[in-house]
Amino acid sequence: MPAETPQFASLQTPVLLLDEAKMMRNIHRLEAHAKALGVTLRPHLKTAKSVEVAKRLGGGLEGPITVSTLAEAEEFHRARISCILYAVGIAPQKLSHAWDMRQQGCDLILLLDSIEQAKAVAAAEIPALIEIDSDGHRGGRAPDDPVLIEIGRILHAAGCLRGVMTHAGESYTVSGAAAHAAFAEQERAAAVQAAQALRAAGLPCEVVSVGSTPTAHAARDLTGVTELRAGVYMFFDLVMEGIGVCSIDDIALSVLTTVIGHQRDKGWIMVDAGWMAMSRDRGTQSLAVDQGYGVVCDTDGRVLDDLIISSANQEHGIVTLREGSTATLPDLPVGTRLRILPNHACATAAQFQRYHVLPADGGALQTWPRFGGW
Amino acid sequence: MPAETPQFASLQTPVLLLDEAKMMRNIHRLEAHAKALGVTLRPHLKTAKSVEVAKRLGGGLEGPITVSTLAEAEEFHRARISCILYAVGIAPQKLSHAWDMRQQGCDLILLLDSIEQAKAVAAAEIPALIEIDSDGHRGGRAPDDPVLIEIGRILHAAGCLRGVMTHAGESYTVSGAAAHAAFAEQERAAAVQAAQALRAAGLPCEVVSVGSTPTAHAARDLTGVTELRAGVYMFFDLVMEGIGVCSIDDIALSVLTTVIGHQRDKGWIMVDAGWMAMSRDRGTQSLAVDQGYGVVCDTDGRVLDDLIISSANQEHGIVTLREGSTATLPDLPVGTRLRILPNHACATAAQFQRYHVLPADGGALQTWPRFGGW
Repeated sequence: MPAETPQFASLQTPVLLLDEAKMMRNIHRLEAHAKALGVTLRPHLKTAKSVEVAKRLGGGLEGPITVSTLAEAEEFHRARISCILYAVGIAPQKLSHAWDMRQQGCDLILLLDSIEQAKAVAAAEIPALIEIDSDGHRGGRAPDDPVLIEIGRILHAAGCLRGVMTHAGESYTVSGAAAHAAFAEQERAAAVQAAQALRAAGLPCEVVSVGSTPTAHAARDLTGVTELRAGVYMFFDLVMEGIGVCSIDDIALSVLTTVIGHQRDKGWIMVDAGWMAMSRDRGTQSLAVDQGYGVVCDTDGRVLDDLIISSANQEHGIVTLREGSTATLPDLPVGTRLRILPNHACATAAQFQRYHVLPADGGALQTWPRFGGW
Repeated sequence: MPAETPQFASLQTPVLLLDEAKMMRNIHRLEAHAKALGVTLRPHLKTAKSVEVAKRLGGGLEGPITVSTLAEAEEFHRARISCILYAVGIAPQKLSHAWDMRQQGCDLILLLDSIEQAKAVAAAEIPALIEIDSDGHRGGRAPDDPVLIEIGRILHAAGCLRGVMTHAGESYTVSGAAAHAAFAEQERAAAVQAAQALRAAGLPCEVVSVGSTPTAHAARDLTGVTELRAGVYMFFDLVMEGIGVCSIDDIALSVLTTVIGHQRDKGWIMVDAGWMAMSRDRGTQSLAVDQGYGVVCDTDGRVLDDLIISSANQEHGIVTLREGSTATLPDLPVGTRLRILPNHACATAAQFQRYHVLPADGGALQTWPRFGGW
């Protein structure tokens, strides 16, 4: 084991580490791809939940951005980002909050897929996108559903129809660029078909929004699409690595932890990153390589051969060799620091109140706040 | 569906609800049992992480309590609770923090199971318990391990040996009072054997601490034990119901959510409680009844027949009838409020920054802060 990175010495683990250089590389990669495809990137900040991260996106504090809660919308608008899509179906009880934000100068756009929501949103005079179902994953109207036109008419009568949006959540269930490109085309085709149906009915459809991290990276042609959304790409994680969207070296997020004990006869090394730090997300369980609760690295971020957190209690992780491994369990005395790569960046980051950032310029560790809640 | 409870009308979901009357019933039940067994109850506050909950325990602000992080120890000591066991194996990097807390008058006790930890703790002159392994679940020394005596001697030489502690985490994997009572006896036997081994070597062993929520409730005889620990019993959850420790009516914690959409042809009802609200904990997956991401109730807390959150995205829960159910899917329009009982109270509560409390006296909803982090 190399000597511990000195700047970690004073930290009390578990701590959420963010490698800014890797994050910037991930951000620039998708920005270049969106530019080549001729679409606006509207990053989803549900993963990062951080103004410091938002500042480092191509749009900076201009936006546009996507959020998953009104609490995120509030925080980002407080930082003067005003072009915000709240991409979760709107509950009528949230309309007065959304209306208040618009009065404060936030161009908040809502999402909906039913006549009842459209009537409430039209009455509140708030612009919205109509959700389109492109893969049977979650909400949304099929692009040929006649109710889509009805919803469009209700919104348009109040001047609230901005366009359509779809998200192929099923793209996470397949692996490799070709399979993701097929889902990207499925998103594009459904969104464009819905936009054409609205226009054919004499309705406007300015925004045609598609995306998920796998489809955004794999998309080859987005003709007819105006904007692309993705979130976890800023940090990446073991699920994205497992389905071939990134390499393990692209993962910008890790949890710094400390060895707190052993059961040597069982080959167990106990660390102070349990599920409270890693989250209960077991997203790699269904993939070709099950990474347990995360992949173990040394403090410089180098993967330790076949070492994973194979099980977790609230504040205990049990590190073992991967099942069937022929590697040798390293000797990691109590007090050894390790870094754990997470299954799912959105879930792991949500367990922490701040990032400890390894700055891209190689300077001293910085602290960036992050927020949660609703 | 009954009309919505008026006091929920102004809330923006998801919101964490706590039924104080149920919580008090749960608290009193275990306190009475501990009293009958002649042991001190040292409640574990890793689930509640709330000073308001701590005040309502039998010991009140006198304690004693158990915590799982030094951040919890700090928060509770700030509220003047001074008798605190930090029940996770100590990392040497945390000793200066623990020492500072003791200087501020906190009777903080640490946990360890190795010679290297014992030397560091003895050098810092902080009292500690030695962890005993009673079920192969996690850390700890076997009660007949000669290293136990070595550790005891190192601690005692510095005046730091307080006693022994064990936790039968494996008790969660079996169901019913008889099976839990067997684990309770296993905890008792291991802890008492370890205490006797220390005493036979001329070492003191004032504290003999055992417990987990299943074993604490099922224990029939705790001869030789001085204190009992348990945490999730204050709130209970679907895992505890699933293994027979409580009834569904004892569960004091739920997540208030709102219907935000439908896929009617699939029998899906979308709600705004996804895994960010419920947590990714799928603790009932391995039990006789898999409750998905939680059991759906109306706003009065009455279970809706066979309705569960069967899958979840970050901010979306998909409510369906349980697989194989012959019940009829209720008509729950957009805007309908529901309450979801969680799989695992520790994990779900950790997703929220506050409790919305239904007070035992039937008065208006109160807000109690809770904390997280490390």
